[in-house]
Amino acid sequence: MAIASDQHTHLDIAPVVAELRALRVRSLESRKREIHPPKLPSRTILKDVIDGLATVLYPNRLGAGDLNDEGIDYFVGHTLDANLHRLQEQIQRELRFKAEQDGNLFPDSQEIDAQAFSIVRQFAATLPRSRELLDTDLHAAFEGDPAAHSIDEVLVCYPGIAAVINHRLAHELYKLGLPLIARMIAEIAHSLTGIDIHPGAAIGPHFFIDHGTGVVIGETTIIGKRVRLYQAVTLGAKRFPADENGVLIKGNARHPIIEDDVVIYAGATILGRITIGRGSTIGGNVWITRSIPENSNVSQAAPRQELFIHGAGI
Amino acid sequence: MAIASDQHTHLDIAPVVAELRALRVRSLESRKREIHPPKLPSRTILKDVIDGLATVLYPNRLGAGDLNDEGIDYFVGHTLDANLHRLQEQIQRELRFKAEQDGNLFPDSQEIDAQAFSIVRQFAATLPRSRELLDTDLHAAFEGDPAAHSIDEVLVCYPGIAAVINHRLAHELYKLGLPLIARMIAEIAHSLTGIDIHPGAAIGPHFFIDHGTGVVIGETTIIGKRVRLYQAVTLGAKRFPADENGVLIKGNARHPIIEDDVVIYAGATILGRITIGRGSTIGGNVWITRSIPENSNVSQAAPRQELFIHGAGI
Amino acid sequence: MAIASDQHTHLDIAPVVAELRALRVRSLESRKREIHPPKLPSRTILKDVIDGLATVLYPNRLGAGDLNDEGIDYFVGHTLDANLHRLQEQIQRELRFKAEQDGNLFPDSQEIDAQAFSIVRQFAATLPRSRELLDTDLHAAFEGDPAAHSIDEVLVCYPGIAAVINHRLAHELYKLGLPLIARMIAEIAHSLTGIDIHPGAAIGPHFFIDHGTGVVIGETTIIGKRVRLYQAVTLGAKRFPADENGVLIKGNARHPIIEDDVVIYAGATILGRITIGRGSTIGGNVWITRSIPENSNVSQAAPRQELFIHGAGI
Amino acid sequence: MAIASDQHTHLDIAPVVAELRALRVRSLESRKREIHPPKLPSRTILKDVIDGLATVLYPNRLGAGDLNDEGIDYFVGHTLDANLHRLQEQIQRELRFKAEQDGNLFPDSQEIDAQAFSIVRQFAATLPRSRELLDTDLHAAFEGDPAAHSIDEVLVCYPGIAAVINHRLAHELYKLGLPLIARMIAEIAHSLTGIDIHPGAAIGPHFFIDHGTGVVIGETTIIGKRVRLYQAVTLGAKRFPADENGVLIKGNARHPIIEDDVVIYAGATILGRITIGRGSTIGGNVWITRSIPENSNVSQAAPRQELFIHGAGI
Amino acid sequence: MAIASDQHTHLDIAPVVAELRALRVRSLESRKREIHPPKLPSRTILKDVIDGLATVLYPNRLGAGDLNDEGIDYFVGHTLDANLHRLQEQIQRELRFKAEQDGNLFPDSQEIDAQAFSIVRQFAATLPRSRELLDTDLHAAFEGDPAAHSIDEVLVCYPGIAAVINHRLAHELYKLGLPLIARMIAEIAHSLTGIDIHPGAAIGPHFFIDHGTGVVIGETTIIGKRVRLYQAVTLGAKRFPADENGVLIKGNARHPIIEDDVVIYAGATILGRITIGRGSTIGGNVWITRSIPENSNVSQAAPRQELFIHGAGI
Amino acid sequence: MAIASDQHTHLDIAPVVAELRALRVRSLESRKREIHPPKLPSRTILKDVIDGLATVLYPNRLGAGDLNDEGIDYFVGHTLDANLHRLQEQIQRELRFKAEQDGNLFPDSQEIDAQAFSIVRQFAATLPRSRELLDTDLHAAFEGDPAAHSIDEVLVCYPGIAAVINHRLAHELYKLGLPLIARMIAEIAHSLTGIDIHPGAAIGPHFFIDHGTGVVIGETTIIGKRVRLYQAVTLGAKRFPADENGVLIKGNARHPIIEDDVVIYAGATILGRITIGRGSTIGGNVWITRSIPENSNVSQAAPRQELFIHGAGI
Repeated sequence: MAIASDQHTHLDIAPVVAELRALRVRSLESRKREIHPPKLPSRTILKDVIDGLATVLYPNRLGAGDLNDEGIDYFVGHTLDANLHRLQEQIQRELRFKAEQDGNLFPDSQEIDAQAFSIVRQFAATLPRSRELLDTDLHAAFEGDPAAHSIDEVLVCYPGIAAVINHRLAHELYKLGLPLIARMIAEIAHSLTGIDIHPGAAIGPHFFIDHGTGVVIGETTIIGKRVRLYQAVTLGAKRFPADENGVLIKGNARHPIIEDDVVIYAGATILGRITIGRGSTIGGNVWITRSIPENSNVSQAAPRQELFIHGAGI
Repeated sequence: MAIASDQHTHLDIAPVVAELRALRVRSLESRKREIHPPKLPSRTILKDVIDGLATVLYPNRLGAGDLNDEGIDYFVGHTLDANLHRLQEQIQRELRFKAEQDGNLFPDSQEIDAQAFSIVRQFAATLPRSRELLDTDLHAAFEGDPAAHSIDEVLVCYPGIAAVINHRLAHELYKLGLPLIARMIAEIAHSLTGIDIHPGAAIGPHFFIDHGTGVVIGETTIIGKRVRLYQAVTLGAKRFPADENGVLIKGNARHPIIEDDVVIYAGATILGRITIGRGSTIGGNVWITRSIPENSNVSQAAPRQELFIHGAGI
Repeated sequence: MAIASDQHTHLDIAPVVAELRALRVRSLESRKREIHPPKLPSRTILKDVIDGLATVLYPNRLGAGDLNDEGIDYFVGHTLDANLHRLQEQIQRELRFKAEQDGNLFPDSQEIDAQAFSIVRQFAATLPRSRELLDTDLHAAFEGDPAAHSIDEVLVCYPGIAAVINHRLAHELYKLGLPLIARMIAEIAHSLTGIDIHPGAAIGPHFFIDHGTGVVIGETTIIGKRVRLYQAVTLGAKRFPADENGVLIKGNARHPIIEDDVVIYAGATILGRITIGRGSTIGGNVWITRSIPENSNVSQAAPRQELFIHGAGI
Repeated sequence: MAIASDQHTHLDIAPVVAELRALRVRSLESRKREIHPPKLPSRTILKDVIDGLATVLYPNRLGAGDLNDEGIDYFVGHTLDANLHRLQEQIQRELRFKAEQDGNLFPDSQEIDAQAFSIVRQFAATLPRSRELLDTDLHAAFEGDPAAHSIDEVLVCYPGIAAVINHRLAHELYKLGLPLIARMIAEIAHSLTGIDIHPGAAIGPHFFIDHGTGVVIGETTIIGKRVRLYQAVTLGAKRFPADENGVLIKGNARHPIIEDDVVIYAGATILGRITIGRGSTIGGNVWITRSIPENSNVSQAAPRQELFIHGAGI
Repeated sequence: MAIASDQHTHLDIAPVVAELRALRVRSLESRKREIHPPKLPSRTILKDVIDGLATVLYPNRLGAGDLNDEGIDYFVGHTLDANLHRLQEQIQRELRFKAEQDGNLFPDSQEIDAQAFSIVRQFAATLPRSRELLDTDLHAAFEGDPAAHSIDEVLVCYPGIAAVINHRLAHELYKLGLPLIARMIAEIAHSLTGIDIHPGAAIGPHFFIDHGTGVVIGETTIIGKRVRLYQAVTLGAKRFPADENGVLIKGNARHPIIEDDVVIYAGATILGRITIGRGSTIGGNVWITRSIPENSNVSQAAPRQELFIHGAGI
Repeated sequence: MAIASDQHTHLDIAPVVAELRALRVRSLESRKREIHPPKLPSRTILKDVIDGLATVLYPNRLGAGDLNDEGIDYFVGHTLDANLHRLQEQIQRELRFKAEQDGNLFPDSQEIDAQAFSIVRQFAATLPRSRELLDTDLHAAFEGDPAAHSIDEVLVCYPGIAAVINHRLAHELYKLGLPLIARMIAEIAHSLTGIDIHPGAAIGPHFFIDHGTGVVIGETTIIGKRVRLYQAVTLGAKRFPADENGVLIKGNARHPIIEDDVVIYAGATILGRITIGRGSTIGGNVWITRSIPENSNVSQAAPRQELFIHGAGI
């Protein structure tokens, strides 16, 4: 602010810039990149796209402003069109990035474009099915929570629903070969809700997560119909097998299978490729690493606390 | 971007729009809605209103810019006035929505307006009391955390305080018959802090939540004075009773009562309409489903780990 | 909206404003402040500064837009320069606030300015080292997670990385005597990721937090090299010693020391100034309050659940 | 910024606020208003509405982003729907304001709404005709200016076109009984282009204003087909007749009639209810206050300058 | 976007940066500046300040949102307080800049602050008087224009009013010794309205400019009561006297005096320190360089056009 | 807003959309376009680019924030780099548009890119020269206006300078074969200042326009050194020659040549390819259509007004 002498304003930026450049060059070299890397998809744009698609699915509740019957299809069509085109650009980025990862530094632009177009077209066709699934999720939440007064309240308030909207869209993109975009969409929901669902997880209809903070659902998890989870439930991997060189083997089935009509209470941790049989109830804070038969009722074995009474006693 | 032939740009949006319309119509019919539903309160606007009211309560610390003694009451008065009017519009929305839920499709506009006005006026009168309570919460945090250097730091940094500000305001609105708006305000804090306090919970003065991520406090919880919670504490319901048709009974007392001067450490889970007696300490990760007498000290019974030493051993 | 009679528009704001003033005055008096308090650093500005510095560290991945080799150092230099100057202003605020806390109501402006300048200059010099450390963290995440496909994906997606970027910058500021700014930066990451790392914690290279929601790392924690944590791990204090007047003693070493090559699974709680020996593995949900020797493998002692099978049985 | 003594920060705002209140009250009283006046239409919103409607008319050129054939009607329909509804609210404001001007302080809300709806519906039906007229104006500009390279350039660059787009829309609203909104739309164009066309002016097809700064076209002006104007042309009133009380008579025909195929060069001033006959050319800077027959060529009579040579002479 | 070889992306920015630096250094040297120049007031901030003060003067019409009687003084007081403080900072900049112009490179900060405070306090006290004057201007416009339907329409639509609001505020700042800020405020209005009033001009009550584009009013102009101007009127200087070194003499009286009740029609040019006597009417496009007695009616001497009829004649 | 019956909400948008589509199709057909037209450069982006380049030229005065000597070249380099790349994209648009105008519907993308790159590189190299010219313009304004207090004031306040900054940049782009972008940049200045300089005009150093509103300078105008213009001066074409088909011949020299050291006062109109000889002075409001020798002093021949005195007379 002041017109001060140089000794008080010179922050010595130049050497910092030079050191950072040296570190960048070294890092690029270590990854054998000689040219500038392709751009990644933008999280900011993906957030807008997913928000836009959510308004396409639920225009009356998540769309902005006063939609009436005359204008609603124009709104839906325009919002869909605009956001699919924005998504298409982001898909091109992931395809270019993937090509570079695969060693193809100069992928054919027209091929990338055609591939991105084909993916986005297939993705568009899945949207009605996603809305159908989400409708079942909304009913599951409404019916499963005594504090819920209406489906509408569930849709606009419940973090579990917000996370599942992102998941159902991200999962379709994951299946279409876009793991990076899918993951970014999942992390957007994770940041807002504390619910971390890997986009690879396959989740059936009527799914409900209550409260949700701290839930983790791993990449190869399979969840059946009418499953309900509470906060801080982990459906995780037990251990990560490595190959003979000690490098992690990626992509193999390593997370649980949760069959239909299972309820899992808060803090339960279920690890490994095990199966929780249909109709089972898993109590809070339990730790499960082997399969559970159908209709089981798992809870902590014994009273976990003793009472050390100080003061007058009981 | 390119001037491409139609086959590469036609995403087939029209059938998606039509399918989504069909799903919307079916969904409205299933809820016996024949007309467009009333608008819900806007989460975005409620967030602004609550942020505005927070600056009304703490203008020097949460208000923007350089307030001096001459201007501060103008700032407080104007911010209060503007945000109460914005809140009034949102209240009208909830009242119209509730009327529709109750089968009253064409509620009297003047009555809705008068009711919203009356509510907002009553709410305004509670603000000084909320500030008084929040002052006690600030002191509780400052005194309870060795890492806290000043009350000011607590106010601007601590997520527990942010959650409690929203809660104390939401709780007043809940008591005035606005469960939806109250819930939306609670979820705003939940998203930012990972602390999920249902606006129905009744919480006494000098309340402090440290760290906070994963805390869940249910709708009918009652918390006394000088209570302190750590992260991932759940004050929840044990089970949800259903009526003879299997439909959940909503609204009954189903969450714990925490009496004065209780401390509950991280990860403890306390479920059902039980009472934790005054002066008790609940250890981390314990699981409690029955009442605890005054001045108890509950912790895990036994060392919970064995040591499997590999390598050279101890 | 309506042109209503006064009785329907008068919200009685004036007495609320007056009551709030009375509460403010009382609160200032109780803290023996007679004049308006100095401004605190702004969380909004600090968020921008940290985001800016993150783009300085990783311009190709976190920087906006299309940087090419010709422009990248201009971008880095300008972004660095601009954000250091913004940080300098925030540092002045903390120094003024601290002076007031120390009873120095009218600190010398030139001295404050010189001190802030000196701090920001020292901080700038630490940035290349922070990038080096973060590079090791990125590799740790990539190598430790079978779901990770590339270093780039880790950098832009993983909440654990986002939290550690903020921590490594906040920790330098903490060491330079700015606990308040450091804490605000930590809380920004906490809100976005659910990961709560106190800026005082000293963390070695190759550090990785997976999923992360609910992790708490206390002020005096010391973490070695190649440590890996999962969600909901707490590295906390066991109890807070008070002086003879019952006032908490602040700042003493009260959190764990985690030596090199330790893995701590989800939900584990480690409390007090204990040491987890190098190479140990701590299982999920365990509760540890005493030191663990090197190369230990700690997990829950016994199967924690019984199976109460209802229905047809196994 | 500084913690200064009161004498340097007290700006004495309270008496200014009080004096301004007294002036407001006096002003309201002088206009016999006892209650708060109705809101006026918002210039900011009207600007957005007109910009939106311009993109409806020319979506490929004035619309944002990449429209393709599949999406364009959704864009047009949605943009039209959204902006007509926004316009409807502004129309309600003008109708309420007009009712108050006419002494009707409590107009019937349903009547106002129905009237606004009817007007906006009629207005919507005029849009295709406005586009047709504007297409002729674009051709007139392209054909009339040797510097124009394409119709597209004319549409996006020429201030004369921008002013005429606003005028053609404003004129329809003026005819539908909304002089205030119409005037606000005209002034938006005036501010951007320096071209001041009163929305009452009736202007035929193929109209072109080149450069345009300083053009003024009065309320009752009538302009035929294929008329071309240059900058600083005034089509104004000669004098304003007053009634016996000295009050101006408002609304009578007082501006020129310009017949087909007239060209008026820069700076010409044409005043009063006179007629410029078809096919005439009016030279720059002339001053005309009586009618001109068809096919006239009016220019300044004589060389208007003498040469006072200093220096060596010719 | 593309991963192109260097030859297609290298724009050769470095030499441009270097050349521009050389030019800047040369320019600073030519003005004998050895250090970085002080900041100038910000046009963007001044625009906001003036817009804010305009809402203080006319809160019901120019203020945002729904003000009611209860909230209006809070709004006025807060907006006034906030904008006066922002103005104070801008005034400090002008004072520092002026000090540097006067050769005082290191002006005393406290003195600058005290001076700025004193000026802004005096300025605040002039606001009620400015509102009174503007009320007379509004009446003059309403009464003088047959197209005006209400005072409110005049206030929100007429560019002449917008320009005069800025002028009346800028003129007070000019008189308080801030010619640069005053000029910036005048240029803001100039850009929006095409009306260029130097802030030094002294203008009496009941002043009205119709249409306005192209009006120029010079620094030492004096305008009496009830004066009306139309578009493109110039009240300018005739010539600029220079001293013996050929340097322009700045600041002397060189623009016209317009007495009470004068009307000046469009395009009239009045130059030099002459007087237009009270009650005179100056016709359009006339050129006046000598004084005009009271009650004169000046218009162009003779019909200025001949008719060259082509075609059939009259 | 209301839940009204359909008859009150149905605006009949569908037929309007259909009619507009029919008009668009007809318009495209009339221009023999069968496919969607290429995008035009964006005025909004060009405005940002030009503003950015202006801060590159004058970083201390037009750049945002507090630049110091250490950071200024980083700022200049980064701003230059970012804006040149944004400009490059806009240039690609104009080149594609031009190709389509020339009948080349599918231009080679790589060729377009290479051409745009080459142009932007050449343009970058002209920037230092533009700054040099602008420095002379600043001095001309400062020396020519008795109201100017400093060069800095001139730079930030004077609309004539703002217009000339845009012109000097637009003129370089015009010479590099980008008439559309150049025109858009000129119109940005025209809208803000009322000064309309065609980018084709060639203007020498030390050029000054005072006040400026209404100035028009045509495409083929040539202006020498040290020329000064006042408001509403037109340097235009006299007539537009057409070919044997009546189509305007575009691009031929048709505007005046103004030699060195000419002053042209407000409202003067100079038309056709004539020459105003060096050192001449052209008086206000004169109308010139033939060449004027050197050192002439042209003004209106005779007193242009008579005085019709009513009242007491002279």
